[in-house]
Amino acid sequence: MAAMENPGHFCSDLPPALPDEVMQTLLAGGAFRLERIVSHGQHSPAGFWYDQDEHEWVLLLQGAATLRFEEGDRLLRMAPGMHVTIPAHCRHRVEWTTPDADSVWLALFYRAA
Amino acid sequence: MAAMENPGHFCSDLPPALPDEVMQTLLAGGAFRLERIVSHGQHSPAGFWYDQDEHEWVLLLQGAATLRFEEGDRLLRMAPGMHVTIPAHCRHRVEWTTPDADSVWLALFYRAA
Repeated sequence: MAAMENPGHFCSDLPPALPDEVMQTLLAGGAFRLERIVSHGQHSPAGFWYDQDEHEWVLLLQGAATLRFEEGDRLLRMAPGMHVTIPAHCRHRVEWTTPDADSVWLALFYRAA
Repeated sequence: MAAMENPGHFCSDLPPALPDEVMQTLLAGGAFRLERIVSHGQHSPAGFWYDQDEHEWVLLLQGAATLRFEEGDRLLRMAPGMHVTIPAHCRHRVEWTTPDADSVWLALFYRAA
């Protein structure tokens, strides 16, 4: 009989504040990858845009952040509990994360069915 | 150019308290399904065990709950931010959810890569 595995708290055991964001893969299947991303004041470099081959669904669990989307030059302020779907090749950047706390993201990267 | 889609808050637009839990599929790919589950005092019927063909990773976003696992007759009290992996055929049940508030779960069902 299978037993449950790895109970824990999503926002505990956070890495120390580091120069870069810290990404950890929690689960991966053939068509998806679940990551925890911890930011501490980081933002994307000037002029940089993420342009990903995979779709991404991202949920902010803790902290505060602002995403920017090239389409419509739209800003999205993220508070805990907020989520957004970022389709493949939707160019976006992390405009700001609060320098005062750890921001903890759950990101599900996936390919279309 | 693709635009971002469906920004929102995971714990808003909750359904009214109903006799049964409310499950909504947020995303589905070939090998995974992301659901939001809202409980309001429900628990599994006496003697009932979930025995699923898929693996499940579940995170409690809001509320309070207790899961029971048949293996070792283990109880797991869930508070917001807590998560656990429930492998396929790990028999488990929802022993309790708080009757005083909505409990909001994020569940990722998946098959091995």
